Amino acid sequence: MTEQLRPDGSLRHLLTLESLTRAQIERLLDRSQTFVRPLGERPPLSAALAGLTVANLFTEPSTRTRVSFELAAKRLGAEVVNLEVQLSSRAKGESMLDTVYTLQALHVDALVIRDAEAGVPELVANHVAPHVSVLSAGEAHVSHPTQGLLDALTIYQRKQRFAGLAVAIVGDIRHSRVARSAWHALRALGVTDLRLVAPAALMPAAEEFEGATRVRSIAKGIEGVDVVMMLRIQKERFGDADVPDGDKYFATWGLTPERLALARPGAIVMHPQPMNRGVEISSEVADGPQSVIRDQVRNGVAVRMAVLAEVLTARSGAVSARA
Amino acid sequence: MTEQLRPDGSLRHLLTLESLTRAQIERLLDRSQTFVRPLGERPPLSAALAGLTVANLFTEPSTRTRVSFELAAKRLGAEVVNLEVQLSSRAKGESMLDTVYTLQALHVDALVIRDAEAGVPELVANHVAPHVSVLSAGEAHVSHPTQGLLDALTIYQRKQRFAGLAVAIVGDIRHSRVARSAWHALRALGVTDLRLVAPAALMPAAEEFEGATRVRSIAKGIEGVDVVMMLRIQKERFGDADVPDGDKYFATWGLTPERLALARPGAIVMHPQPMNRGVEISSEVADGPQSVIRDQVRNGVAVRMAVLAEVLTARSGAVSARA
Amino acid sequence: MTEQLRPDGSLRHLLTLESLTRAQIERLLDRSQTFVRPLGERPPLSAALAGLTVANLFTEPSTRTRVSFELAAKRLGAEVVNLEVQLSSRAKGESMLDTVYTLQALHVDALVIRDAEAGVPELVANHVAPHVSVLSAGEAHVSHPTQGLLDALTIYQRKQRFAGLAVAIVGDIRHSRVARSAWHALRALGVTDLRLVAPAALMPAAEEFEGATRVRSIAKGIEGVDVVMMLRIQKERFGDADVPDGDKYFATWGLTPERLALARPGAIVMHPQPMNRGVEISSEVADGPQSVIRDQVRNGVAVRMAVLAEVLTARSGAVSARA
Repeated sequence: MTEQLRPDGSLRHLLTLESLTRAQIERLLDRSQTFVRPLGERPPLSAALAGLTVANLFTEPSTRTRVSFELAAKRLGAEVVNLEVQLSSRAKGESMLDTVYTLQALHVDALVIRDAEAGVPELVANHVAPHVSVLSAGEAHVSHPTQGLLDALTIYQRKQRFAGLAVAIVGDIRHSRVARSAWHALRALGVTDLRLVAPAALMPAAEEFEGATRVRSIAKGIEGVDVVMMLRIQKERFGDADVPDGDKYFATWGLTPERLALARPGAIVMHPQPMNRGVEISSEVADGPQSVIRDQVRNGVAVRMAVLAEVLTARSGAVSARA
Repeated sequence: MTEQLRPDGSLRHLLTLESLTRAQIERLLDRSQTFVRPLGERPPLSAALAGLTVANLFTEPSTRTRVSFELAAKRLGAEVVNLEVQLSSRAKGESMLDTVYTLQALHVDALVIRDAEAGVPELVANHVAPHVSVLSAGEAHVSHPTQGLLDALTIYQRKQRFAGLAVAIVGDIRHSRVARSAWHALRALGVTDLRLVAPAALMPAAEEFEGATRVRSIAKGIEGVDVVMMLRIQKERFGDADVPDGDKYFATWGLTPERLALARPGAIVMHPQPMNRGVEISSEVADGPQSVIRDQVRNGVAVRMAVLAEVLTARSGAVSARA
Repeated sequence: MTEQLRPDGSLRHLLTLESLTRAQIERLLDRSQTFVRPLGERPPLSAALAGLTVANLFTEPSTRTRVSFELAAKRLGAEVVNLEVQLSSRAKGESMLDTVYTLQALHVDALVIRDAEAGVPELVANHVAPHVSVLSAGEAHVSHPTQGLLDALTIYQRKQRFAGLAVAIVGDIRHSRVARSAWHALRALGVTDLRLVAPAALMPAAEEFEGATRVRSIAKGIEGVDVVMMLRIQKERFGDADVPDGDKYFATWGLTPERLALARPGAIVMHPQPMNRGVEISSEVADGPQSVIRDQVRNGVAVRMAVLAEVLTARSGAVSARA
C-alpha cells in the first residue's frame, strides 16, 4: 500500500482512510470544522494556496464532486484546471501516467483523481514527484476518502460523539466506495455498532467490513440506530439475483417515514447523492426534518478545503512560508 | 408569479421583465451603463463580489451567453462554476431541484439558469434559500430578461430616448423569448409604435403582445422605423405552413440594404445572434454602418454585471458591508 | 501573409515563426527563460495581465495545449474562458468570424486558436480589432509556433548553442505542424545540419524544408546527431503506401536504446506528445536519462507566458501603464 504520510508525519496523499489513525482522522475533522460556515455568509478571503495549482482529472463524470473540489481549491486561492479524460482501455495505465507527468510538468501541485478502475489513484501516487499530492475523488468500489470524512463530520456535528452510536448502512453496500470509506472512518473513530443492511446480492464479501453486523431486513436493520446512511442503488443492479426492480425495491428496501420511526428518536438520515427518490428513499424522508443530506454537501467543501490545505501547506518550507 | 423583489424593494431574482416597473428597468439600465467601456480599454479591477460564487447551470448549450455571464461575474471578483447538465425528462423537476440544493449547499450565491422548458427558472426560484438569487439566461420561448435589457440599453445609447420611437421586430416572433423580453422592456419604457413583422405561421397568438401592430410584409413593417430587431430563424421552422426554406425565406423576409432603406435614415439594426447570414439577414446589413449587433454583445456583459451586482450586493448587511 | 508585428516593431500576433528574425525569436526565448522555474517551487504572483481576458477557442480537442495556455494566462493574472466550438463546414469561416467578433465585443484581448484547417488563425487575425492579438495553438499541418519555441528553448537549455548542432526530426514529417515550426525556429537560430528522417510516404513535398537533408533510414538519420525530435504517428497513417502498421513501424522506425546509441553521446530526445509508446518510441527511451520530454512541457508554459506578456503588454499606453 502506498505510504500516505511524509517522513515528518504530515499528510501527503489521501487515497484511502483505511490506514489513518483515529488521531489523524480527528485532526482532519477538526480542521474541516474550521472551514464550515453558515449558508449565506460570505467567507473570509484566503490566499493560503495562492500560486498553487490543483487539477481535477476525472475519467468518470461527476459534476457534483468536481465542483466541490473546484470550489474548495478556489476558495483557498489556488488555480484549478478541469480535465475530463477518456482513456482507451488498452495502455490505460501508461496514458494516465503520461497525462500525469504532463500535468506535473505544468506545475500542478495536487491531482484530484476519480476513476472507475481500482488502483489508479495509487498508481499515480506511486509515480509523481515528491512535491506533488494525489487525492482520490472516488476509486471504483474501493474508496472515496473525502466522502468518508464528510460523513463522519456530519455525524459528529449532530451527535457530538462516536462512541456508543449505532449506525446502519443500507442498500448496495457491495459496490459502494462510500460505504467502505464510511466504515474505515467510523471504525477508527470508535463506532462499534455498525450494521450492513441489504439483500444478499448487495452484501459485501464475507471477509470485508470486519466487525460489522449483517442484517437482511431494513426494519430490523435500522431499529434503534442513531444514524441511517442510505446508498444509491444503480439501476443496472435491478434484475440481479434477489434485487427487485424500482417499485418493488422501494417496497422492500426503501426508507419511508414508517421505517425511519423504528430508529432512535432524533436519528439522522444521510445519502451521498444523487438520490433515486421513490427507489431507495422517499421524498418525505429525504426532505424531512431528520435529513442531513444538504449538511453533507456543505461539509464536503469544508473537508476538501481542509485536505487540500493539509497536503499542500505542509509540504515544504518554501510553501508553508507564504501560507 | 414568483416575487422578484425582496421586502425592501431590492431585486432578488431576474426571471422576467414582465413585472418590472419603468423605474426599476431604468435603474438597471443606468447601472449597466456604468459598466460599459470602450473596447480595448483595460477595466478597473473590482472585488465587489469577492468571496461569492455564481453557478451557470445550463441544460441547453449556449456558449455565447454562458461566457457573457461568466466574464461578468469574474470581472466583479466572483468565483464561477459552469455546469452543463443533461436531465432526463422523467423526474426532471426533482433532479433539477436536487442539483440546485447541492449547489446551494456548496455556497453558491447566484444560479444562472438556461432551460428549454417553460417554468424551470421559476420552479428553482421558488425553492432556493432566502440568500440565493436566480437569474434566467433564457427560458423556453418565454423570457430572456438580460437580453431584453441589453436590447433596450443598445437602443437608448443610439437614440437617447424611447418615447416616440418606432420599433419593428422581424422574424420568428412566435417562438422567440428575445422578442417577448424586448416587448416587456420597450413597453415599460414607453415605446408605443411596436410592430411585429412575420409570416402568419411565425406570429404569436392573438392575445400576446398587447398593443403591438402586426404586419405581414417586411417592406411595410419596417417603413419609417427607428429600430429593426431581427430574430434568428431556426432551420426546423422551414416547411411549416407558410415559412419557405432558406433562400426563399431570404427573398421574402430577409433584411437587405434595399429593404433597410425603407426605415428612417439612421435606423439601427439589431440581432441577438447567432445569425443565419443569407437567411434572415444579409451580410451587407449585418456588417454595415447601421448594425449595432456588436454593441449588443458588449452591452450584454455590462447588463449582466449590473444585474449580478444588483441582486448580490443588496441582499444582506453581511454582504453589502464588504461590497 | 499577415503582418505579425505592430508598426513599432512589437509582436502583435503569433501565427507562425516563419517570418520572425533570429533576434525576435531570441528575444522570445530570453523572456520565456525568465518564466522557467523548478518543479515544486511556488511561483511569484503576477498581476501583469490583471483585467485582461484570454479566450481559448479550440475547434479540435487538445486538453494538453489548452491547459498549458490556460495556466500561462492565469499565472499572469488574466481571466481565461475556454470554448470548444463545433463549426459546421458550410459557412465555417463566417461562423468563426461571428464567434470572434462576439468574443471581441465581450472584451477578450487575446484569442488562442486551434483549428484543423489551414488559414483559420490568419483569417481571424485579419479581422480582429487593432487591440486584439491572435495566437495560434496549432493550425492544420502548417504551424504550431509556441511548440517551435518550446522546442528551441529546450534544446538551448541543454546545449547552450544552436550553431554546429545536428538535429534529426523523425517520423510523420509530412503531416506535422510541429516539424514545420521547429524547422522555422532552428533555421533562424543557425542550425545547419537538420535531417528529415522518414519513410517516403511521410516525407514532406520536395519544395518544403529547404536546406534540410532527407534520410530514409532511422539508423543513418540519427547517426551523430545532438538532438532527436520524434513525432507522433497517427494511427490513420498505417496502411499508407510504405507505412507499416504499429509493431512493424516500431521495428523499422521506432526509437530504441540501440538506435539512440548511434547519436552523439549526450544527445537529447524530444517528443511533442501524446506518445504512442511501442510505436514511434520505446518506453525505455521516453523515460530514460536522455529524454527531455517533460522539460518540453514545463517550457511550454513558460513560452506561452512570454508570448502572452509580449503581445498584451506592449499594445498601448493604457495597458502597459499598469503592467
